[in-house]
Parts: sequence; structure tokens; C-alpha cells
Amino acid sequence: MSTINDRLAALRASLAAERITGFAIPLTDEHMSEYVGGYAQRLAWLTGFGGSAGSAAVIGDRAAIFTDGRYTLQVRDQVPGDLFEYQDVPKTSAAVWLASHASAGDRIGYDPWLHTRAWAKDAGARLAAKGAELVAMARNPIDGIWDDQPARSDAPLEVHDDSFAGRSSAEKRAEIAGWLAARGADAVVIAALESIAWLLNIRGRDVSHTPVALAFAVVHADASVDLFTARGKVTPAVAAHMSGAVRSHDREDFAGALAAMTGKCVAADPESCVAAIFAALQAGGARVQEARDPCLLGRAIKNPAEIAGTFAAHVRDGAALTRFLHWFDGEAVKGDLTELSAAARLQQFREQSNMLEDLSFDTISGAGPNGALPHYKVNEASNRAIGLNSLYLVDSGGQYRDGTTDVTRTMAVGTPSAEMCDRFTRVLKGHIALASAVFPVGTRGVQLDTLARQFLWQAGLDYAHGTGHGVGSYLSVHEGPQRIAAAWSSQPGNDEPLVAGMILSNEPGYYKSGEYGIRIENLVIVEPRDVPGAEQPMLGFRELTLAPIDRALIDVALLTPAERAWLDAYHARVLAEIGAQLDGAALAWLTQACAPV
Amino acid sequence: MSTINDRLAALRASLAAERITGFAIPLTDEHMSEYVGGYAQRLAWLTGFGGSAGSAAVIGDRAAIFTDGRYTLQVRDQVPGDLFEYQDVPKTSAAVWLASHASAGDRIGYDPWLHTRAWAKDAGARLAAKGAELVAMARNPIDGIWDDQPARSDAPLEVHDDSFAGRSSAEKRAEIAGWLAARGADAVVIAALESIAWLLNIRGRDVSHTPVALAFAVVHADASVDLFTARGKVTPAVAAHMSGAVRSHDREDFAGALAAMTGKCVAADPESCVAAIFAALQAGGARVQEARDPCLLGRAIKNPAEIAGTFAAHVRDGAALTRFLHWFDGEAVKGDLTELSAAARLQQFREQSNMLEDLSFDTISGAGPNGALPHYKVNEASNRAIGLNSLYLVDSGGQYRDGTTDVTRTMAVGTPSAEMCDRFTRVLKGHIALASAVFPVGTRGVQLDTLARQFLWQAGLDYAHGTGHGVGSYLSVHEGPQRIAAAWSSQPGNDEPLVAGMILSNEPGYYKSGEYGIRIENLVIVEPRDVPGAEQPMLGFRELTLAPIDRALIDVALLTPAERAWLDAYHARVLAEIGAQLDGAALAWLTQACAPV
Repeated sequence: MSTINDRLAALRASLAAERITGFAIPLTDEHMSEYVGGYAQRLAWLTGFGGSAGSAAVIGDRAAIFTDGRYTLQVRDQVPGDLFEYQDVPKTSAAVWLASHASAGDRIGYDPWLHTRAWAKDAGARLAAKGAELVAMARNPIDGIWDDQPARSDAPLEVHDDSFAGRSSAEKRAEIAGWLAARGADAVVIAALESIAWLLNIRGRDVSHTPVALAFAVVHADASVDLFTARGKVTPAVAAHMSGAVRSHDREDFAGALAAMTGKCVAADPESCVAAIFAALQAGGARVQEARDPCLLGRAIKNPAEIAGTFAAHVRDGAALTRFLHWFDGEAVKGDLTELSAAARLQQFREQSNMLEDLSFDTISGAGPNGALPHYKVNEASNRAIGLNSLYLVDSGGQYRDGTTDVTRTMAVGTPSAEMCDRFTRVLKGHIALASAVFPVGTRGVQLDTLARQFLWQAGLDYAHGTGHGVGSYLSVHEGPQRIAAAWSSQPGNDEPLVAGMILSNEPGYYKSGEYGIRIENLVIVEPRDVPGAEQPMLGFRELTLAPIDRALIDVALLTPAERAWLDAYHARVLAEIGAQLDGAALAWLTQACAPV
Repeated sequence: MSTINDRLAALRASLAAERITGFAIPLTDEHMSEYVGGYAQRLAWLTGFGGSAGSAAVIGDRAAIFTDGRYTLQVRDQVPGDLFEYQDVPKTSAAVWLASHASAGDRIGYDPWLHTRAWAKDAGARLAAKGAELVAMARNPIDGIWDDQPARSDAPLEVHDDSFAGRSSAEKRAEIAGWLAARGADAVVIAALESIAWLLNIRGRDVSHTPVALAFAVVHADASVDLFTARGKVTPAVAAHMSGAVRSHDREDFAGALAAMTGKCVAADPESCVAAIFAALQAGGARVQEARDPCLLGRAIKNPAEIAGTFAAHVRDGAALTRFLHWFDGEAVKGDLTELSAAARLQQFREQSNMLEDLSFDTISGAGPNGALPHYKVNEASNRAIGLNSLYLVDSGGQYRDGTTDVTRTMAVGTPSAEMCDRFTRVLKGHIALASAVFPVGTRGVQLDTLARQFLWQAGLDYAHGTGHGVGSYLSVHEGPQRIAAAWSSQPGNDEPLVAGMILSNEPGYYKSGEYGIRIENLVIVEPRDVPGAEQPMLGFRELTLAPIDRALIDVALLTPAERAWLDAYHARVLAEIGAQLDGAALAWLTQACAPV
């Protein structure tokens, strides 16, 4: 097995052979995905970095890795500092760093299938200011030196039944055709894997934890679709499901098909369509219209069947989590549990439903100080024993055909400190303030973010992540366009009005570095709120997630009567809906856990 | 006196003589000011519209007036509908409307001294799409037909003493020179009247209610300034104050001076520098750098002398307002007061200090349904008697050498309804939530806006204006860049971090059309907040405005203990600081008004 030193040297030699003096290595795929298949884990292969967001760059004899505040410790642990300089995002970026070290005549390579056009334009301009050039490489040089690079998954497509999807693909395709007609466009390129899955009512197994299939789609004004995916993925059942209006092609024919759209007016979303897609369209003489992926809002606003499905999935998932919490409550104090063993047991509870298709992301199982790393991913080396008088944070979720779940609970093991209870209660007060917000139609998530932070702010505290993200319907556990976060955050979506039927997480937290972490996360769905005497249409949230919130961590004296009423009502609903799934000791435990405070 | 019909006909004839087929009439001046001198009230002269925001446009035999929701009723009252179509902003705008009615060959005029470059670019592109042309006119055609157009004010400049300003002009000029050096620029054009006043520690009397002088300034890298203002405005005292580093020129020489900056790198703010300034610089061969007015933050972040001044001004102003409230409380129930007589009496109380330089804006004195118009301006025709069992809303402020005030109080006359008390208490709860917010350094106003709205939202109610605006120091009562408002609002400034020393208003309201209006407005100053155990630097607000909030309108049962504590503490401070200015019946009344709830 080659060392990181060997790999970096091989990359430099490969670049030199093409007279390229630098290279940028992002962590994404040809669809600008957040979660990618093993074949696209080039950053991890080259640097050893195992986080879910970051990039690297090489220029001459220098190399650097770029990560944000979540990974400050992890990157130093995993990536050799003598090979890669540690650089902090957003203070700098691969493009800024490359330009700062570039000299006249430098030729900096990039893979146009892994970057947006905006990135290439920005990086190109920065390099040009130094007399250097940004060069689109015909082949990713890492693919040439990565001997045991996994192949792209050839898992077959799967039919996502209309009973789960709630709308037929034909209906969705007709809607996109109407959208094209309204814009006067002939076709739209869909590159986001979740959008293709949504549009065609198909799913896949090409990316761990996200049930999508590697494919590109072009939707035409007549509502027909050209689907580009690996030969063999389209089973007869899938072909029958998609009907004749969907023509299947080899994935390799995609770029050629784009280049053949001469004279056509073709829409493409610059956020999810990579630079190579725009280049192929333009080289072929298509007229390109930048437009937001027309599937985005349809995915985000769940229809009645999807809403019924997510409620059912959450009862099932909540019962599994509650069984785990009951088990944990009895076992943890014995001192034999570790982060890995607890996470494994939780997965077993979820699997007992026989309806779990996958976890929806790698379980975050954080004991004591590891809980203070908001995106902690346990492994054999980091695995901690769950100790007495500490906090344990578990953020986990499941993929079910009828819905995707994502829930965080924080539990006291033994006796929590007064400070832990104060912090937990402030997080809970923020959670309740957001959960019980009523707001006018048209409100954006950025307007609600402060509701969840205000009680931490009063104590001079905060958390360094957003408060809420969208969630797919048996799709990605992170999806846009809606979000609840501060306005200037790097992730977009704060300016998106919330609409009834959207799912969001509500997940304030508090993290004390080196000591403990707290997060309380429920998924909620936006619903119309009938307020007597209202002068305009109002919205509110309804909880999807049903699982008890640890009463041992609540300082009841800090709660207002309205907050206590919310908590008791939530727990009463948990007991009614989850209790009906349980019996015996688990039910007795839940009854206790849901008693009014 | 000519009729509006005559004026519109004269404008059309004047345009025809120059082969111009349309024209845009904004409400601003050569400095993009919000408040303008009489000579620049072209919109009011042409259309009869007396509101503070709007525009008009003429094309062929059509004409339209463009106003926002605040003026829906007023514009119909003041502007003849047979001459001007009523158009709603932001649904449309003068530029959009002109383009929608333009035909190939149309030549639409605009005055390049009254529009930004961005406006001209956008309007020009819209017109070009119809084959029409946007034409910069050498002279505003209205000035050629407005017989009794007031001259520009020739009021002399006044020295703003360093004891009020807190920093010498030399120090401020050196700071701007440092800013130029950091950008590698040779000079910066300052067109905003408030910035010129701030930079040179001068004031003027050229615009009603805003103590600025009509002038342009160019600041050079050596910290010297060329000041362009009407001959005779620079008195010997002002000249001595400004020192030799400030060279005075005739206002008419400004454009020529810009055109002479050949080869220089000149910064200019596209928000406050009109299109003609950029055109003159570019025609003369200067290299233009777009940059935010470098005086903006210095103006917004008050220094210790300005902070001491604003506290003193607010005690003085609060005593005058409290005397008025006492008087009003006794008089209003007798049934003889009108909006005009009440506003006049309030002005008298302010004048009694002998330190009032001007009101800071036209007093909003709204009885009953007139209070539901957030920007109501009383006149003889609209003047209402203040009736029993109604609400009276008064929004007013003063200009003092040491500070600018702006305060709104709503008073019950007789017995308020339960609904009025419910609404008032919800507004008060929002006011308190914002007033008592603690937030991290870096927080933007948009993040705090919802705190003030949440209790109205819970009842399905809201208010259709921002929650807070910046305020100058013996300058404009509205100043940026900070604001507290929803993100997508048309006015910028929501993305500006709040900084200790900034002054903001806190003014939630509720307006029931045709019945009553409620607003509770205090000015507050951002200050560091020392929170025990804080993990990061925090900020909070301290009230500047001191005047009682009408206890007769408060439904105490709706207040939490913390809200009651805030209100009682605020009233205790009002009693201590304002009570010390009063005696006799007024003091006795205030003692009662400030009693704990």
C-alpha cells in the first residue's frame, strides 16, 4: 500500500509529464454532490483526510489542505504536516492559495468535471493576475496514478414506487416541460443526482447513505428525457417503470449529446452543473440559459403521500431510537460501552424494523469531549469509552422507502454537572422557541435562526453551525434550497421562503471544547397554521421526530410556563405514538421519560 | 398659480422641443439625499404628491406616479388620476414602466445628476431592448418651466464644534488619507451631504430638518480637501475652522474639477455619487474605483463625545416629551385637541429648552385611523380631532447640537378597547425582546428583526416596515449603514454588523387600517455587554430615549416576569433622569406614569 508521500510524488510526476505546475483537488463528484461514491474520494486517497468537506492543492514543491473550523483537530491528526500545509477555510481557499503562490508561466490544472464554472472563472482570473493559466485537464491525473481506485458503482437502478413518491414521473416530467415552455427553452440539463431520482421516481445504491444513482438527464420540451447512466443499470423493471418517454444512453455518451445540441436553447443550473457541462454545450453551439434546477422546489415541498410516509418513517425510527435510549440508560452506567458499541447497537435497533434500507449518514456517536466535535465520526482509533458523569451525544438517522430521518439526542450518564444542565436547558429553550414559532408566509429561514440562539447568547455562548437544513424524501439527508442559518453563512439557501410541506431540522447545540457536546435535533415539517383573527396566512412547524428528551439534563427552573407546556405536550405525543410501538420494560421506561416536568 | 395640468403640458412641450419622448422624475437631489431642499422638490411641484418617497415618469401622452404601500391613499388624494396613472412600487418602477411603454426610436430623458449609474445602466438596458434610447439631459427640463422654483439655499455653513464632534476634522481627514493609501487611490469623491458635514465638522441649513450644507468634496491622498459649495457660504469663521487644508471652490466648478483628474485613481461610492459624477471622471480620463463612502462607518460609530452628547440631548428631549405627555393626558379627554394643535404644543415644549436647532423630521401626529398610516404627515385638510376612547400616535424628534432624537409614543385617550391593549402589549413585548437582546460581535440587524415581531406573529399579525434605522449625530435622523429589518427589504444595510457606538431605533408597531395605529419607538445605542462566563465578546443595547410608555395600554397579564422587570427598570430610569428635570404637577404625573406595573 503506497504512502501519502508516494502518492503526492506520483501526482507531481504525472503533472510534470503534462507540463502542468499545479493542481486543485476538491471533494465532490461530477454532480457537485455533498456525499460521493468511493471512486470520487480522491482527496482522502491523496491526503488521508477523512472529513466530509475540504480540498487540497499542489503547486511546485508546495501542497496544502483546506478545511473549515469543524476539522481543525482532525486534519492535523490525519494529514502529514510535512507534506501538506494546513490552511483554514474561509480565511483562504485552494484558488486563493494557488494564485498567491503562482508565478508567471505557471499552468495550474483542474478537472472541469469537478468544479463549477464560477469556480473556474474566479480561479482563472486570480491566476491570470499573476501571469499564470488555469488549464482544464482532459483526465483527472489522480485517476491515472490511483491503482486500486474503486470503479464507479454498477448497482442497478431501483423503482421508487408511486405510492411513496406521491406523483408519477409522467406528471413531474410534464411539469418540467411546462417550465421549459414558460422560459422558451428547448431542454434542461439535470445533473443533481437527487433531482434525477425525484424526477424519474427511481433510486440507486451508488453513494453510501444516499439512495441515488450516478446519472445525468436532459429533459426536453416534449417532456421526454434522455438518461445517461452506466450500461446495465437499467433493469427491465426500471425500463418498464420509466416508460418510452425516457431514453437510456451510456453515461459516456453524455458529453457528446450536449455537444450535439447545436442551436438549441438549453437551461442548466450553475450550482449543480459542472464547468465541463457548460463547456460542452457552448462548444456545440447551444444557447445556454442559467436557471435554478427546476426539480429543486418539487423535491423540497413534500406532497401528501410523502408527508404521510415521513410521519410513518419517523414513528418507526423513533421507536427504534427509544428502544436504544432505554437500553443505553440501563447499560451506560455500567461503564462497558464505547462510542462504537453504542452506535452498533443503535443500528441493530433500527434494523429490527426490517424496513431500514441504509443509515442516512455515518452515525455521530460522541462521548465526553468527542461530543464537542459537531461532525465527529468515530473510528477504531478515536473510539472512547462512555464514562460516568459525562454526556453522550448521538446524531443518527435512517433511510426508509417512505422517508429519511435525522435525529440527535444528548444523554446524561450518571450525574451531570450544574453547568451541563444550564447549557442543555438553554439549548432546549432555543429548540422550543424555534419549534413553536408562528411566522407569515414568505418568511425566510434566516429570520428564524436567532430564535434558537437567543438563550445561549444571553449567557455569552453560541454554536458555530447552522440551525436547520432541508431533508429529502428517501433521498439526501441534506437538501436545499431552504435552510435556517445566519445570512452570511457559506452555504446558500437562507433567502428561500419556507413553504408548507418543507422538512427542516431544528438542531441548536452547545460545544465545550475538550469537555462535552450538547445538541437537540428534531426534524419538523412546515405546515399552515390557522391562527384565529390572523390578518395574513401564517405557517408553523410540526415535529416529525418522536423520541424523549433527557429530563435529567433539564433545569426546570429556567423554563417558562409556556416552555414547560411545550415540552410536556411533546412528551405526551411521544408517549402516545411511540409508546404504542413498545411494551414491557421499554414502555415503562418511556412512560417515566415522558412524565411532565 | 399654474395647475398640475399646465405643468405637465409645459413639461411635454419642453421635452418635445428637445426631441425627447419621455422623462423620469425621481425625488432626490444631486447627493442622492433622502431629504432634499425646496429647489429639488420637482416631483411635488409636477404632481402635487407630498410624500417623502416616490417618482414619476412621462412618455408620450401617458404619465404615471410610483409610490409604495405607505402612500396608497395619500397619492390618490393628492395627485389627479386623470393625469397620472397610480403605480405601485416595488411591483413596478419608473424604469420598468417607461420600458414597457417605449417603442423603437423613443428617446427617454433623465437628469444624470439625480440618478445613480446603476439606475441609468438598468433603465438604458430595458429601453434598448425595445429599441429606445436613454438620453442624459444637459439641464433638468423641469427647472426650465418651474417659474417660482426656489433657489438653492445660500445659508452659510456653520462650525460644528470639536467638543460636539469629538474628533477634529484634521484627524478624520488623515484617516481618509490612510484609507486612500491602503487602496492605492489618489482621491475620493464624497457626495453624501452628511459625510461632508461629518468630515469637515461643519453643518448647514440647506435642507429642512437635516443640518447639512449643499456641497461636494474631493479628499486627496495628502489629506487635503477640495470643497465645492455656493460662493458666500464659507464665512470667515468657517474658513478659519477648516484651515488651509480645505480649499473652497464654487459649486459650479465641481464637474470641471472631476474632468481634470486625468490619470488619477479616484474612488467614488456608487450609492451616493450620481451618474454624472462617474461620467465626468471617466470623460476626463480618471481611473475610477467603486468603493463605499469611507466616512460611513466613522459617522455611524459614535465616539465618546458624541455618545455623551446624545445622552444629554435625550434627557433634554425626554423632559420636553414628558411635559407634553403630561399636558396631553390632561387635555385630550376634554375633546378640544387636534393633530395639528397637539404637534404644535409638542414643538413648543421642545423649544422651551432654547437648545432646539430644528425638528429632526415633520412630526407624525396621528389620531385614530390616521395613526394607522405609518408615515402620516398632518396638514390642514387631513387634520383630525383627537377623540375619546381612541389612540393617539406621535412620532417626533429634535435636532440639538449634541444629538438627534427620534421617539414614538402611543397614548390611550379615554378607555382603550381590549383589542388595543392586546396589540399594544404584543408590540411592547417585541420592543422589550429587542431592547434586551444580547448578541455576539458580528451580528447583523437582520438577525434581530424577528425578536421584535414574534409576539405579533403568534397572533397572525405583523407590521410592514423595518424595525430599526441608524441615526446621525446632529445629522440625518435616518442614516446607514446599519439597519434592523428583514433581509429582502428594499433598503440596504441588513448585512452590516452592529458595532458598539452605533445608534439604532427600536420601533415595532401595529396598524389596523381605518381604526388605529400603535408604535413604540426608542433610540438605543449598541454597547459592549459584559456577560459573566461569556466565551466571546458580546453586545447589547442601552436606551437613549427616556419617556414613559402608556401603562393604560398594557395588558400586564401578557407580560412575563422578565418583561415586567424590564419595563419597571426602564420606568425607574425615566423617573430618575427625567424626573430630575421636572417639578410640581408634571413630576407627580411622571411618578405615577413610572410606577411598577
